[in-house]
Amino acid sequence: MIEKKVIRELTAIVGAGNVFTDKADLVTYSYDAAVLAPVAPGVVARPVAPEMLGRIAALCNENGLPLTARGAGTNLSGGTIPEPDGVVVLTNGLNKILEINAADMYARVQPGVVTAKLAAAVAARGLFYPPDPGSQAVSTLGGNVAENAGGLRGLKYGVTRDYVMGLEFYDAPGNLVKTGSRTVKCVTGYNLTGLMVGSEGTLGVISEIILKLIPPPADRRAMIAVFNRMDDASRAVSAIIADRVVPATLEFMDNFTIRAVEAYSHAGLPEDAAALLLIEVDGHPAQVAEDAEKVEAICRKHGAAGIRVAADDAERDRVWEARRSALSALAKLRPTLVLEDATVPRSRIPDMVRELEAIAKKHDLSIGTFGHAGDGNLHPTILTDKRDAKEWRRVERAISDIFDAALSMGGTLSGEHGIGTAKSGFMERETGPGALVFSRRLKSAVDPKNILNPSKIIGRAEASLDFKSGDLKSGDFKSGDLKSGEPESGKPESGAAGAGV
Amino acid sequence: MIEKKVIRELTAIVGAGNVFTDKADLVTYSYDAAVLAPVAPGVVARPVAPEMLGRIAALCNENGLPLTARGAGTNLSGGTIPEPDGVVVLTNGLNKILEINAADMYARVQPGVVTAKLAAAVAARGLFYPPDPGSQAVSTLGGNVAENAGGLRGLKYGVTRDYVMGLEFYDAPGNLVKTGSRTVKCVTGYNLTGLMVGSEGTLGVISEIILKLIPPPADRRAMIAVFNRMDDASRAVSAIIADRVVPATLEFMDNFTIRAVEAYSHAGLPEDAAALLLIEVDGHPAQVAEDAEKVEAICRKHGAAGIRVAADDAERDRVWEARRSALSALAKLRPTLVLEDATVPRSRIPDMVRELEAIAKKHDLSIGTFGHAGDGNLHPTILTDKRDAKEWRRVERAISDIFDAALSMGGTLSGEHGIGTAKSGFMERETGPGALVFSRRLKSAVDPKNILNPSKIIGRAEASLDFKSGDLKSGDFKSGDLKSGEPESGKPESGAAGAGV
Repeated sequence: MIEKKVIRELTAIVGAGNVFTDKADLVTYSYDAAVLAPVAPGVVARPVAPEMLGRIAALCNENGLPLTARGAGTNLSGGTIPEPDGVVVLTNGLNKILEINAADMYARVQPGVVTAKLAAAVAARGLFYPPDPGSQAVSTLGGNVAENAGGLRGLKYGVTRDYVMGLEFYDAPGNLVKTGSRTVKCVTGYNLTGLMVGSEGTLGVISEIILKLIPPPADRRAMIAVFNRMDDASRAVSAIIADRVVPATLEFMDNFTIRAVEAYSHAGLPEDAAALLLIEVDGHPAQVAEDAEKVEAICRKHGAAGIRVAADDAERDRVWEARRSALSALAKLRPTLVLEDATVPRSRIPDMVRELEAIAKKHDLSIGTFGHAGDGNLHPTILTDKRDAKEWRRVERAISDIFDAALSMGGTLSGEHGIGTAKSGFMERETGPGALVFSRRLKSAVDPKNILNPSKIIGRAEASLDFKSGDLKSGDFKSGDLKSGEPESGKPESGAAGAGV
Repeated sequence: MIEKKVIRELTAIVGAGNVFTDKADLVTYSYDAAVLAPVAPGVVARPVAPEMLGRIAALCNENGLPLTARGAGTNLSGGTIPEPDGVVVLTNGLNKILEINAADMYARVQPGVVTAKLAAAVAARGLFYPPDPGSQAVSTLGGNVAENAGGLRGLKYGVTRDYVMGLEFYDAPGNLVKTGSRTVKCVTGYNLTGLMVGSEGTLGVISEIILKLIPPPADRRAMIAVFNRMDDASRAVSAIIADRVVPATLEFMDNFTIRAVEAYSHAGLPEDAAALLLIEVDGHPAQVAEDAEKVEAICRKHGAAGIRVAADDAERDRVWEARRSALSALAKLRPTLVLEDATVPRSRIPDMVRELEAIAKKHDLSIGTFGHAGDGNLHPTILTDKRDAKEWRRVERAISDIFDAALSMGGTLSGEHGIGTAKSGFMERETGPGALVFSRRLKSAVDPKNILNPSKIIGRAEASLDFKSGDLKSGDFKSGDLKSGEPESGKPESGAAGAGV
């Protein structure tokens, strides 16, 4: 239970209408798109001026209360699930686009601005903000920065990290930290901007974001390539990259996903195809024409049964709408959906697709695979029912196998969804102990009371901060309440309809 | 004096031929391109295997010895000037290109690989590593990462930070930390890669770097635009960016610099021009043709007296060679050269150029201005003689005025040269106290004995780590031996012939 005194002080900061303690409100903010077990906070506060964020942080720090900042709650790894009796800080009262500077090609925004809203405002000024997480229609830029959100255009345009020029945030004791600049080059001080991106609210509470904008491409062309063998499609992906074509988007969809999407959206996808590639090239019209021709030739060479080029923007939009509905479509099929985003170097996509098939067969599970193949960032999606304990054990083993497969190919646990609590038990398998210990030291230094979104990414930060010389061995440190390399029971569950992928 | 025991242990790590204690050797490694007062280290070690870096760090940590890693020593802010009786660790024994993976478009290198050598090896495989600091012929990739080196192509292609996908480094106690990935997307754990880039050797010693490669542009075209009024040239820069053209390179040179370069290199530059713009556009041939036409039209509209397009690669190379010689050429004119790189939002380039003229006049100083105008990153270069105490006082005041001018325009102290010791006393003027305190906490957490390149960037890290709540005020913390907002006498001197700009 949160003390009444704290509620009173919170109310003094944000105003009476912006503090919520009703059970219905607390339940509303107890989960995110990872559908991990919900955890109700003690209180929800909605600041309406940036300096209120600093005052709330100071209040939490003084009282040792866990603080979880929350945008739209679309994240897929449990990063916005609060602590019991903790404070949830909503950013939707800080939703102003402060500036769009067309001459210097940057935007300044508050953290609660919705991604698609900024993209539209920027487009209206003749500029382009590329990061387009699947949840862009509702996700917030603060959340995108905290999670380093990816999206469909990552292949050519990069991810959120590549667009954050500067930040203002409040640290745990409530001090304002300004980092980065409105200039495209800046090496003044540590790259705290880079450190904050993807730190999932564990190092500070973001109050302002400076985002880089670029000129939009002059032309674009979308197409769908239909394959009768999955292997052909995945080899075409690698061949496109190897041929030095960099499409804006290069997405993969297996038969399982195609059928689910078609049943859901009736977009006219070929339901008997083994796999589809959804491709968009953009840039100068001459470049677009050449790239499209190259892509088509490579797909045909690798056995594409057919290629359809979108005739106009309406058809193009239908293609991408269908793709964006993949997760929602799959979520309809079984009670529990486990969405992973282990990522491999792009040339290993054919190996990874084969491996995912083998893992599904080995554990007798339904896995639909789709995602950002051009980035090596697939989303194998396990359809299951968590109430079936026997099947759930097989799911846990399959997840572990997926991680091992990705790591054995030089890949990573998470391409864009983050670690949160869902994958923190697996971190060491990828990074070894050194990065974890180093990270815990950083966290502990700037948040010694561990109030900022505790337990996310690095597990319980109080563990293992002793200094020793020489090589750490894997058993040398304890990862708090997580068994090293083993997920907590129930933790790997993730994914939900409507979330961004 | 370093203890004999330490020398013996260092020798046991790197071998007898790789430890240097002769006075001549110590003097060789007592300075970098910043020509700050030289500081001789106690010993120089040259590891020839990456794990030796960890063992050296552990040895230094146990003995409380300052460790300064050194690539080619071309940096311009004192980042590689060691501590008295400290250990200099040379990286030139770790100079292997470990892998160029053309399919997945990345390279893995050791820190001592020379920038231009990697660029050439990558080009031979049909790929492109864009960052091109002025010193690329001798600078090392480890140094580029530690300083987040910029270069002439930053405008279109970004800086070193934009190409570092992953790192391995040894922390102060000598543990190996692995961060980032061979995949283009990776959100596994904190973005330690981003934090390390530009941290000037203060957080760890880099042992391996994974660098992103991209397809090279298909075509390019270089041109020189000649202006009779400086203001016209700087307004043309802003107009080019505002017209959504993104040249690969867009460099500015004032008359003072033109004459110095011409006297030095006889490249055929027009000595009576008030200013030159040196421009290169690249990409698809159709894009290049269009962009070149646009750039030419904009320059003429803004009063360009003439535009010369390089007829072939040889002429193009002459243009860039002349530009790259600017610093060397200016360094010939007076005994002391103070090179700054305060950076402004690009639309403010005309204001900044005018302001620099006014500052030169106000303090009765010769300032040659050239640099990466397209990035807002000019290099005003004060020619002086430090032995003239009266003139030197004027130089100090001019530097302070340059910083104030850049900051008043929403700019930054340093676009690409780093803070080192040269600008650490000015940091707070830009960031306020919050970022400095936060940064010192981070440093102190991972390097509690302050052995890793102490005093760089954040001044003396032991200062002011007390936690307090609420807003820090500017006077609330002490910055060690630096007066807040005031450079130490003699500190702002910087710049040297042959250095990279």
